[in-house]
Amino acid sequence: MPQRTTVGGYLIQRLGELGVKHVFGVPGDYVLGFYDQLVASPLEVIGTCTELGAGFAADAYARVNGLGAVCITYCVGGFNALNAVAGAYAEKSPLIIISGAPGMGERERSPFLHHKVRDFNTQRLIFERVTVAAVALENADDAPAQIDYALDACLRQKRPVYIEIPRDMTTVPCAAPKPWKTDRVKSDAAALKEAVHEAAEMLRKAKRPVIMGGVEIHRFGLQNLLVKLVEHSGMPIASTLLGKSMMEEDHPQYIGVYEGAMGRDDVRKIVERADCLMILGTFLTDIDLGIFTAKLDPAKTINASAERIAIKRHVYEDIQLKDFMEGLIGALPKKGRSPKARAKKQKEIVFKSKPNNPTTVRRLFERVDAMLSDDHIVICDIGDSLFGAADLTIRKHTEFLSPAYYTSMGFAVPAALGAHMNKRKLRPVVFVGDGAFQMTGQELSTIVRNSLNPIVIVLNNKGYSTERFIDDGPYNDVLNWHYHRMPELLGAGMGFEVRTEGELDAALNHATENVKSYSIINVHLDPYDSSRAMERLGQRLGKSIKKPKA
Amino acid sequence: MPQRTTVGGYLIQRLGELGVKHVFGVPGDYVLGFYDQLVASPLEVIGTCTELGAGFAADAYARVNGLGAVCITYCVGGFNALNAVAGAYAEKSPLIIISGAPGMGERERSPFLHHKVRDFNTQRLIFERVTVAAVALENADDAPAQIDYALDACLRQKRPVYIEIPRDMTTVPCAAPKPWKTDRVKSDAAALKEAVHEAAEMLRKAKRPVIMGGVEIHRFGLQNLLVKLVEHSGMPIASTLLGKSMMEEDHPQYIGVYEGAMGRDDVRKIVERADCLMILGTFLTDIDLGIFTAKLDPAKTINASAERIAIKRHVYEDIQLKDFMEGLIGALPKKGRSPKARAKKQKEIVFKSKPNNPTTVRRLFERVDAMLSDDHIVICDIGDSLFGAADLTIRKHTEFLSPAYYTSMGFAVPAALGAHMNKRKLRPVVFVGDGAFQMTGQELSTIVRNSLNPIVIVLNNKGYSTERFIDDGPYNDVLNWHYHRMPELLGAGMGFEVRTEGELDAALNHATENVKSYSIINVHLDPYDSSRAMERLGQRLGKSIKKPKA
Repeated sequence: MPQRTTVGGYLIQRLGELGVKHVFGVPGDYVLGFYDQLVASPLEVIGTCTELGAGFAADAYARVNGLGAVCITYCVGGFNALNAVAGAYAEKSPLIIISGAPGMGERERSPFLHHKVRDFNTQRLIFERVTVAAVALENADDAPAQIDYALDACLRQKRPVYIEIPRDMTTVPCAAPKPWKTDRVKSDAAALKEAVHEAAEMLRKAKRPVIMGGVEIHRFGLQNLLVKLVEHSGMPIASTLLGKSMMEEDHPQYIGVYEGAMGRDDVRKIVERADCLMILGTFLTDIDLGIFTAKLDPAKTINASAERIAIKRHVYEDIQLKDFMEGLIGALPKKGRSPKARAKKQKEIVFKSKPNNPTTVRRLFERVDAMLSDDHIVICDIGDSLFGAADLTIRKHTEFLSPAYYTSMGFAVPAALGAHMNKRKLRPVVFVGDGAFQMTGQELSTIVRNSLNPIVIVLNNKGYSTERFIDDGPYNDVLNWHYHRMPELLGAGMGFEVRTEGELDAALNHATENVKSYSIINVHLDPYDSSRAMERLGQRLGKSIKKPKA
Repeated sequence: MPQRTTVGGYLIQRLGELGVKHVFGVPGDYVLGFYDQLVASPLEVIGTCTELGAGFAADAYARVNGLGAVCITYCVGGFNALNAVAGAYAEKSPLIIISGAPGMGERERSPFLHHKVRDFNTQRLIFERVTVAAVALENADDAPAQIDYALDACLRQKRPVYIEIPRDMTTVPCAAPKPWKTDRVKSDAAALKEAVHEAAEMLRKAKRPVIMGGVEIHRFGLQNLLVKLVEHSGMPIASTLLGKSMMEEDHPQYIGVYEGAMGRDDVRKIVERADCLMILGTFLTDIDLGIFTAKLDPAKTINASAERIAIKRHVYEDIQLKDFMEGLIGALPKKGRSPKARAKKQKEIVFKSKPNNPTTVRRLFERVDAMLSDDHIVICDIGDSLFGAADLTIRKHTEFLSPAYYTSMGFAVPAALGAHMNKRKLRPVVFVGDGAFQMTGQELSTIVRNSLNPIVIVLNNKGYSTERFIDDGPYNDVLNWHYHRMPELLGAGMGFEVRTEGELDAALNHATENVKSYSIINVHLDPYDSSRAMERLGQRLGKSIKKPKA
C-alpha cells in the first residue's frame, strides 16, 4: 500500500526537502490548523509583527538560501504581504506564499465569512498577477501535484508562487511525496553552439571587452562559474546594483557597480568605452542605467539572461545561462588575470576619522567600508542607504542584499531578520533611512525574540531624502523619532545617537562588541546632505517628473 | 470659450466639491507632481508612516465624512494600501484611491522602470478586484468623464474606487468640471408599493416584531430616518456590531448589539423570539451571527438592504432602502414610544473602582463606559477590543468605528487619525490589542505631527488573544513592548502603565486632562482573561478549525 500523509504534511515535507527551515508569518484563524502542523514539524515558525515584515524577511531568506516561505491568513494577512511578494517577483526571488482560507465546507453555509472581500477567489486571483504559479488546494487528490507544480515553478523561474489551503483541507489524507526531482532543462544544442561561437568571436575580436553581471548570478547559483569565466577570459567585470556581491569585490578584475552617470565615473568610462559588452544574468532597469543616462550600444552588446540570449539585435531562445557561460570558457582562449588589475588588490581601505566633524553620508559609508569583514552581510534599504552602499567592498558571494530595482521602502530591517535566521554566523549591517524605518522598523521586535544581533544604522535626515532631490515639498518631511530609544520601547537592544565622526566611531565600536542584541545607531544627517549618486539621480528624476506630456 | 483646468486640477476640484478636505498618503516619485498640485490646493495632505496607515485613516475619514481619499505611489505604495482598500470594500466605505504611475511617455522608452512588477497594468488589474470602479487617466480628453464615473460609483455604492494618474498626465490641460450632480436613483414605484404593503402587513400582524439595523444606516446617512421609523412603529431595535452607533444607544427602544450566542443573552432572546424580524441595511456576517450560533427563521424575516429587499424567501429589486423606510412610516400605524422601555433610560452607568484589583477586560470596558461622553468617538481594533466594546453606550450617531466584518488587525490607531482629522471636536478613545498595535501603532507619529489628542488604550495580554481561545500555540505570543514608553521614541505624548483598577482610574483621569497630545495607556491583562463574548466566539471558531473535511 502506498504511503499516506496529509495535505498540510505534504507541503511541509517538501519545504523541508528543498531546504526551507524557517517559515515567516503572522497567524490568523483560517491558518491556525496549518500552524499547528508547522509547530509539530522540524520547520520553525518565525512570528513577525506584520505580514509585510514576514514577506520581506522570507524574500531575503530566499535570496540567501535559494528558497523562502511566508505563511499568512486569508485576505487581511495575504494582502498585507502583497507588496513584498510583488518585489520578489520584480527582482526574481524564489518565495513561496502559503495562505489559509475559509474551509470548503463552511463556504456553502455562509457567503459572509469574516475577512472575505468579494468572492472566495479574490485573493488567489490577485496573487496570480504577482506570481508564476497560484494554486488552491481544494481537494486532496490533486493537492500533491499542485504543490509540486508550484514549487517546481518557483525553483525554475526564481519567482514567487502562491499556495492556498482551505482550513478544512490541512489534515485531509493524501498521497505521500515521491522523491523530489527537478529535471534539468537542457539547452537547444545547436542554438547553444551557434550563440557561443558568435559571442566568442565578438569577444575575441574586441580590444576592450567588458563583462557586466547581474542578479541572476545570485539566483541561479552561478557565482563560482562567473569567477571562473572572468579569470579565464581576463576581462574586467562590473556589477549592476541588484547584482552587487555576485563575486568577491576585492578581486583584481572587479571594477565596481555600473549605474550610468549616477555611478562612479571610472566604472562608467570602462563600461561605456567597451567595444564589446557582455551582460550576464540581468535585465537592465532604469536605476541600473542611472535613469537612462547610460550609453550602451546594442551593436556591441551580448545580453545573456535566464530568459534569452540577445547578441546585437537578434535573439537566441532555449539556451540555459549556465550552459552559455560554460560554453564560453571552452571557446575563449585562456588569458589569466591581468597583472595591471592585480596591483589594485594591494589597496587597503583606510579611514581616518575626524572626531569633531559632523557626520555626512559619504563619510559614513567610507567609515563602515573600513569596518566590514567577511563575517558581515550588508542589507540596504532604498535611497541613500542603497546608493551610498554601492561602493562598499563586499568580499564574499551574496553578502549584499537590497531591493535595487523594485525599490520598496522598508525592506531592510525585516530582510535582516530573514537573512540572519538563515545565516546565523553572518552579522547584518543594515542601512535604513528614517522614512523606511518608520515603515517596518517594528520588526526589531522579532529580531529580539530570535536573539539576533544586527547593527542597524538609521540615516536620519528627517524625511524622504531621495524625493527632496527630485521635487521638494513639505510632504517629504517625517517626524524626528528618537530611533536610538527603540530599546526602551522594546525592552531590549542597545541604542546610540550620533552627530559627529567621533561619536560614530564610538557607536560602531560598541555595537561591534555588543554581540548579545541588536544595536541601533541614530545617525543625524543634514536633510540636504546626500551621496553624490543620489544627487545625480534626483536631478535626472526631477526632470522627468516636471515635464508634462506633449 | 469653455474653461480649462488640468487633469490633476480636475480631480482635486471634485474632491473639494464632494467634501474631502484631507488626503492621506505617503509620497513617491511617480506621484510627486500630483502632490505638488495638492499642496497648492485647499486640500491638506496628511503624510503617514505607511500606506496601510494612510488607507485605514482614509477609510475611517470616509466613514465619518461620507467620502475619504488616500494618495500613494505606484506598486510599492499601492500594494501596501491594498488591505485597507479591501476592508473598505468588504465593509462598504466610500474610499477613493489615487495612485501615481509611470508617465505615458517614459513607458515606451524603457520596459524596466523602477517599482514595476509585471506590466504597466498590474496594479490597476489588482485594484479592480477590490473596488467598484478602476480607471487610469491615460489621456486628457477622457479624464474628466473617467473621474466623474469613478466618484459617482463611489458615492452610489459606498465602496472604494481606484484612480491612476500617470505622472506626465497631472498637468496636462483638460476641460473644467461642470457642476456636480448625482442623479437620485428612483425606486420602481410598483415594486416599492408592493414590498411596503407586504412588509407592513407582516409587521402589523406580529406580536413581537423587532428591527435590527446595520452598517448601511451609517453609509447612506439614514440615522435620523431610522430613529423616526423606530419611534413611529414603537418596535424595539437591535444593532449589528458593524452597525453599532447607527442610533443613540440611550434611546429607550434600543436594546443592544445582537451577535447570536456571542452577544448579550437578553438581546439574543428578544431578537430570536421575534415573530417578525426586520433587518435594515446590512448583510449578516458570520461575526454578526455569532459564528452561526444565531437562530433566525427566514419565514419571519424582512431583510432590506441597499442592494435588494428580501421578504421571507422572495426578493424585490430596484427599491431604494430610504424609500422603503419612508414607505413603512406611511404604512404602519403610529404607536409612539413604549413606556416600558422608557424606564430604561433612567438607568445611569455607574462604576465603582476597586483600586487594588488587577485590571480585567470586562472591568476595563465598564470603567470606560462610565467615562464616555458625547464628545468621544470610540474606535476599536479587533478581538476583545471589539467584542468588549460591543456593550459600550454610544449616545450619538456614528461615534463608534470598527472593522467588525473584515476584522483586519491594525485598523484602530490609523483610523483614529483619520476620524480625528475630520471631526476635530470628537476625541477618539481607541481600544487596540498589543498584536494590533505592533502592526500600525507607528501612526501615533502622524497623530503627533497633526497635534491630535486621542486616548489609546492598549489591551496588553502579550499575544493574539482571540486565537488563543480558538487554538493555542506558541505562535500566538508577541513580545511584551513597553507601550507606555512610545513617547520616548516619538519625543511626544504621555504614557501610562496600568496593572490595577486604581492605576487605571489615575491613568484615565490624567489622559482626560492631557488635551495637548495623545495619551497611551498600557493595560496589563492576564493572557487568558477575556470578554465573555470572545470566550464564546473562540469556542465556536475552535470547533470549526479542528474539524477536517469529510
